[in-house]
Amino acid sequence: MTDHNPKLAKGPFDGLLVIDLTHVLNGPFGTQILADLGARVIKVEQPGHGDDTRLYGPFVNGESLYYSFTNRGKESIVLNLKDEADREIFFNMIKEADVLAENFRPGTMDKLGLSYDTLAKINPRLVYASSSGFGHTGPLANAPAYDTIIQAMSGIMMETGFVNGPATRVGTSLSDLCGGIYMFCGIASALYGRERTGQGTHVDVAMFDSTLAFLEHGLMNYVATGQSPERLGDRHPYMAPFDVFQTQDKHIAICCGNDALFAELCDALKIPELVSDERFSSNASRVKNQAELKAIIEQQLSQQNAAYWLDEIDKHRVPVAPLLGVAQAMELPQTKARNMLIDAGAVKVPGTPIKLSTYPDPTVRKGAPKLDENGTAIRQEFATAQKT
Amino acid sequence: MTDHNPKLAKGPFDGLLVIDLTHVLNGPFGTQILADLGARVIKVEQPGHGDDTRLYGPFVNGESLYYSFTNRGKESIVLNLKDEADREIFFNMIKEADVLAENFRPGTMDKLGLSYDTLAKINPRLVYASSSGFGHTGPLANAPAYDTIIQAMSGIMMETGFVNGPATRVGTSLSDLCGGIYMFCGIASALYGRERTGQGTHVDVAMFDSTLAFLEHGLMNYVATGQSPERLGDRHPYMAPFDVFQTQDKHIAICCGNDALFAELCDALKIPELVSDERFSSNASRVKNQAELKAIIEQQLSQQNAAYWLDEIDKHRVPVAPLLGVAQAMELPQTKARNMLIDAGAVKVPGTPIKLSTYPDPTVRKGAPKLDENGTAIRQEFATAQKT
Repeated sequence: MTDHNPKLAKGPFDGLLVIDLTHVLNGPFGTQILADLGARVIKVEQPGHGDDTRLYGPFVNGESLYYSFTNRGKESIVLNLKDEADREIFFNMIKEADVLAENFRPGTMDKLGLSYDTLAKINPRLVYASSSGFGHTGPLANAPAYDTIIQAMSGIMMETGFVNGPATRVGTSLSDLCGGIYMFCGIASALYGRERTGQGTHVDVAMFDSTLAFLEHGLMNYVATGQSPERLGDRHPYMAPFDVFQTQDKHIAICCGNDALFAELCDALKIPELVSDERFSSNASRVKNQAELKAIIEQQLSQQNAAYWLDEIDKHRVPVAPLLGVAQAMELPQTKARNMLIDAGAVKVPGTPIKLSTYPDPTVRKGAPKLDENGTAIRQEFATAQKT
Repeated sequence: MTDHNPKLAKGPFDGLLVIDLTHVLNGPFGTQILADLGARVIKVEQPGHGDDTRLYGPFVNGESLYYSFTNRGKESIVLNLKDEADREIFFNMIKEADVLAENFRPGTMDKLGLSYDTLAKINPRLVYASSSGFGHTGPLANAPAYDTIIQAMSGIMMETGFVNGPATRVGTSLSDLCGGIYMFCGIASALYGRERTGQGTHVDVAMFDSTLAFLEHGLMNYVATGQSPERLGDRHPYMAPFDVFQTQDKHIAICCGNDALFAELCDALKIPELVSDERFSSNASRVKNQAELKAIIEQQLSQQNAAYWLDEIDKHRVPVAPLLGVAQAMELPQTKARNMLIDAGAVKVPGTPIKLSTYPDPTVRKGAPKLDENGTAIRQEFATAQKT
């Protein structure tokens, strides 16, 4: 670990060395957060084409965005972990590392002779993080897993969509991303614990567990009733009106979290009589009669377009929003003001949502490395002769 | 901070004091992770009914699951932050705290005289975490925000659903949960940085930014083309076949991440000729012709039921899964083996996905506190006479 000067620190993890064996999406997404917050992350890639995502589209200026989105700011070295000379370099890296991260199928690291127990003997301070589909324990530990498999088996897909429509995959690789961010949470927590115990930890995070932890009302409903809930479409399970509504042209979202906001909405829609209507006078009765209420609201909304209603309802300070595509969302002044789309090498990538007042939040970051871009330098740095 | 004995530690944050002003879902979800990992979290609730979620259903054994899911293991004190005597208790707590967390609308803490600058003067080591809809900077900083508003404006809703169907809310409060977990990430990172600098930090996390960071392929598509992508239904943007398919009775998910798996699938489905068919011989051509390929696959699948195909395709080691409801997911032996549904007080709650080998992962945890349950004891502990 190098010296830490807070005035020059890029982030709270500045000076930490992370050896990153992760690949594709979930592991790299987790270690990316460490790199964004200042850690030196050395990505160890397999001989050949390296991380599979280097082959995936979309490509911009010759770079794979899939790779760049989760590997910017990292260094790259190609190592054959079955080759003795390469293993020596690798073990020398491990001796100095703070974190090792991997997302191979459980058992793979053991077969390579790189289990937690083995590496902890070399470096007892090592935080060794494993992310996998179902975790390293339990009957499904060895089951193959991709994001869609985990979404399908976790219940999240059956919760998403409309009551008379099909179960729907969340339109992003939610289980991969949840697994990755929980892996980061485990690493950051274990690093903090190590400050007081001097001891590393094996962090074992599953995409499956991570998705279960995000089920929210579906899981509440199961605990309360023993049953899976029906799909709710766009509406809130416990509040109404709290949904997406059709206007003359487009859909808008309206969220009334309490009676006062509902009264304001009724004013805006020119249906003030609803406030004292016993079908709608409390949140509980509005939830019970939400379909009837939605029909009345959409009847009013059908008389004007979305732009009119967004303005009118906002004037009453009721939370209301347009449905934006990704392009519109990314082009909002808010997105720019928060540095949420930044330059990294030759491409644009998402910024970090973790804004810390004592560290910089740069709008230009180092891009993703070319395959083995730092291989020669890292081999020299961690050669055995250097270390003895 | 109390003494730390790793042998007895409940988690890496054991001994830390967290003052938790958060309410409803997003903030409490973040501070819950600190409590799960050993921190002492004192929830400061407003006079009256306390956190609004105490009034929300569903109720089990008289407890609100909405409240219990994100407040188990915390302590509760009611403080009126506009009352001088209560403010004195509060400031005494802040002097000893490691973390303050809040998710009021930006400006509210300033109006209460509890801004970061004010509290950092009292306790420069304080990690002060704010979670809000759009963050504390930018033109939308003061816009009202609920999960559905953020989902609507971030692009995630427009990404979710089928190409000829409506935009679809993710069937969980994704933006609340993303904001909460990124707030935890910011807190854990700032605590780690503080070990070296001795200095606290203001953590400013937005549900909006956090959701943008989860957009994945939709954002890649925007960076590559300047356009929002069309909705993809259940299929993967860059791989095929990688989708949900209809069998004779139910849907199943099948994921072929490479040519070898596709060949195995074709064997299982008894359509081996597809492997050499130029429409399907590479992943790129399969993605291009995915609709045609899906029709052929579903034609084969229609001859047997889901149970048959799950078994048959699994025999070929191709990733395949049933679509499970929340109830079925929670009743899997894997879920039990991983302690993902545990006892907390009188109710069941989700376990933590963060499994750390050097700390326990209990199956029974303390429940959520009753309103002001610890008020008397905490008032005594932090009374000014005690401190001088």
